[in-house]
Amino acid sequence: MKKIFLGISVILTGILLSACGSVDNLSNDTNSSGSSKAKTQLTGQTNTGYYQGVIKNGRYQTSKSRGVSVQQESNQFNIKGFENGLLNISKKQFSTKKYIFQEGQYLSTKRVEAWLERKSKSNPTGLNPKQSKSTNPNTRTPIYLSQIDEQDFMTQNGKSLSLKGMTIGLAINSVDYYKKTQYGPTYETHISDAQVNKEGKKIAGQVLQRLRQNKKLKNIPIVIALYKQASDDSLVGGNFFAYATNNSGANTITKWTKVKQKNYVFPLQSNKKGPSQNDEDSFDNFKSQVQTFFPNLSGVTAQAQYTDGSLTGMNIDITTQFYSQTEIISFTQYIQSAAQKYLPANAPIDITVQSTEGIQSFLSRKTNEKKFSAHIFNSY
Amino acid sequence: MKKIFLGISVILTGILLSACGSVDNLSNDTNSSGSSKAKTQLTGQTNTGYYQGVIKNGRYQTSKSRGVSVQQESNQFNIKGFENGLLNISKKQFSTKKYIFQEGQYLSTKRVEAWLERKSKSNPTGLNPKQSKSTNPNTRTPIYLSQIDEQDFMTQNGKSLSLKGMTIGLAINSVDYYKKTQYGPTYETHISDAQVNKEGKKIAGQVLQRLRQNKKLKNIPIVIALYKQASDDSLVGGNFFAYATNNSGANTITKWTKVKQKNYVFPLQSNKKGPSQNDEDSFDNFKSQVQTFFPNLSGVTAQAQYTDGSLTGMNIDITTQFYSQTEIISFTQYIQSAAQKYLPANAPIDITVQSTEGIQSFLSRKTNEKKFSAHIFNSY
Repeated sequence: MKKIFLGISVILTGILLSACGSVDNLSNDTNSSGSSKAKTQLTGQTNTGYYQGVIKNGRYQTSKSRGVSVQQESNQFNIKGFENGLLNISKKQFSTKKYIFQEGQYLSTKRVEAWLERKSKSNPTGLNPKQSKSTNPNTRTPIYLSQIDEQDFMTQNGKSLSLKGMTIGLAINSVDYYKKTQYGPTYETHISDAQVNKEGKKIAGQVLQRLRQNKKLKNIPIVIALYKQASDDSLVGGNFFAYATNNSGANTITKWTKVKQKNYVFPLQSNKKGPSQNDEDSFDNFKSQVQTFFPNLSGVTAQAQYTDGSLTGMNIDITTQFYSQTEIISFTQYIQSAAQKYLPANAPIDITVQSTEGIQSFLSRKTNEKKFSAHIFNSY
Repeated sequence: MKKIFLGISVILTGILLSACGSVDNLSNDTNSSGSSKAKTQLTGQTNTGYYQGVIKNGRYQTSKSRGVSVQQESNQFNIKGFENGLLNISKKQFSTKKYIFQEGQYLSTKRVEAWLERKSKSNPTGLNPKQSKSTNPNTRTPIYLSQIDEQDFMTQNGKSLSLKGMTIGLAINSVDYYKKTQYGPTYETHISDAQVNKEGKKIAGQVLQRLRQNKKLKNIPIVIALYKQASDDSLVGGNFFAYATNNSGANTITKWTKVKQKNYVFPLQSNKKGPSQNDEDSFDNFKSQVQTFFPNLSGVTAQAQYTDGSLTGMNIDITTQFYSQTEIISFTQYIQSAAQKYLPANAPIDITVQSTEGIQSFLSRKTNEKKFSAHIFNSY
C-alpha cells in the first residue's frame, strides 16, 4: 500500500508556487453558498490546548493536499504521531490563545505529490534523489522524504483572517521499502540516524527557499520540523528530532533546535531497553493486576512517549472479552483503582478498554490531575 | 445465530435449586490461589452512580450463567439495554452507597438454559410453552422468555459479604423468530404487547416461587423486572415495562409497578411518531449542521430514551472519514459548540465520533451539567 504515487507527470512551469496566490485571498473565495464573499467562522475551542479551526461558508476548510499522507503511508501511527507532534511544535511558536489554525492552503496535492517523488526529467521538483542504477539495498539511493504537512496560523482582524505563520513538517524514512519488479518481493533500505538528520536538513533548506518565493509567504515566520518515521511494523509512530524557526524573510535555515523525544511500546521487547526501569515495572505491575481479572486473559499494551528522558504521555490499550455490561462496569472501576495505585504519576495517561465490539469504556488522567476519570459507554 | 440452545438434556432431580447452597458460602470458597479462605476484595467505585463489584482471590466473580445471553441473542442492543436497564431498576431498591453488586451466583448456566427452553418431557423446568403442533406464525405457541439476568446485592460485615437482595430480569420476545426445518427460511411470530405483559407476569410468578425454594433466597427482597425485547433488526434495544418488589418471604407477586420507558432511533423513520417534536427538531438541526462540515458527508444517528414522556438520555453516533488528526480536532470542537447550541438541554448526552479506524473522539454531558466535555483520542 505504501507509496502508490499517482503517476501524474507534473510539469511546473514559470514561477514556482505561483498558483498559491489564488487560494490566499480569503474574502474573495466564492463557494457553493452563492454569496459573493466567503463567510468565515471558527470551530470554537474545547480547551486552550487546541487551536480553533477555520470554517468557510459552513464547511471546514480542508487542506489543499488533503489525503496525500493517508494514501501513501502504510503505518497509521506514523501519520497520527507526525500530525500530533507537529501541532505540539507549532504551539511553542504560535500560542493557541492568539492564533487560529488553518489546514495548509499553500501546498496543493499536485505539488506535494511531486515533491515526494524522486527528482527526474519529468519531475524536476522532486525532493527525493534521482533513481540510482543500483537496486542493492545498501548502495541504491533511498526515498528519504515520505510526508509533508503544512499548518497555517492566522490571526483575526474583525471578520477576516490573515496569515501570520506557518509550520511545515517533513517526515523522513528510517526504512525505505521498495520493489525491484512491480509484483516482486519488498526490499528494505535502512537509513541511519545520521543520514536521516543530514538529508532531512538538506530537504528542509530547499523547502524553505521554495516557500519564500511565494510573496504571501515571504514575510511570515516559518517553522520547519523534522520527523523520523518508524518502520512499517512498528506499533508506535516515529519521532521529531529537530526544528528550526525561520523569522520573517529568512531564506536559509541558520539554527536547528534539537527535540529529544522517543516513543516506546510496553511491554518492551526483550531485546530493547527503555529509558526508565521504574516506569516499566509500574506498567508490568498494572498489567499483571489487570490481565487476570477475568477467567479469560486480557491483553494490555501501551504506547509511551518520553521527552528529555521523562515520561510525557502514555496510551494504554486493554482488550478483553466481556459477557455483560456489569462486567464492563466492574472491570472499569477496578482498572481505575489499579491505575491510581500502579501507574507512574504526573504524566497524562489514557486507557481504552475494548472488546471485539469496539470501545467499551475509557479512563483518562490529564497533566497535573491526581485522579483518573472514567467513562463507560452505554446503549439503550 | 439466535437461540442456539445447547442441546443438553438437563435433568433436575430432587429439590429444585439445591445446588445453589454450595456457591453461597463465600468464606469457604477455595480457589486456585491455595488459600483455604477466599480472599474477597471490591472493585472500587468510579462514582456513586455505579455499584462496586466482588473480586475473589484476585479474580472477578463472574456470573454462574456467564455468557448465556451473548450466545443466544442476535441483537446486541437487547443485551446491553436489558442489563443497563435492570441495573437502573436495582438502584431504586438497593442503593449504590450501601449495597455491593455481585454477578448472579444462584442461577447456573445449565439452569438458565433449561428455563429458557420449551417445557417438555426431557425439560420439565422449561418456562416457555410446550411445542405446539402448528407451525403457522399466528397459531403456534411462540417462545416468550428470551433472557434471564440475575443480580445479587450484598452488604459488607467486616471481611465477609452477605446476600441482602436480588434482582431478576426477564426479557420477553416481541417477535419470535423460528424455522420450520433446520436450514429453512426464518419465520416470525409477532407477540402483542398485551401478550408480552400477560405471559411475562405469569413467568415471573413461577420464577419467584422457584427461587423461594432455596433457603438462602427465602428471606431477602427479590425484585423481578420485565423487559420487552426489540426485534432483531432494531437499532435500539427494547424496554422495561413493569417490575415488582417482593419483600422477604413473599411467595407470590401481589403488585406490579409500571415502567413507562421507550427508546427511539433518530432520525425517526418516516412512518414512526416520536414523543417530542421539539427534540426531533433539535436533533435534525444538529444533524444538518454537522453532516456537511466536511466535503464528504458524515452519518449522524442517535438512540434516545424517554421515561414518563421526557427525554432521559441520548447516545449520538457520528461516522465520517478523516484525512488528518487536525480534522478530528476541528470537527470535535465544532460538534461541541453545535451540541451546546442545538441539542435538548437537561438530558445526559454522549456523542461518539468514529471513522473506519474506530473511535476518534467523544463528547459527553452528564445529568445536571451545562457543558459538554470532549476527549480526542491520541496516538504517539
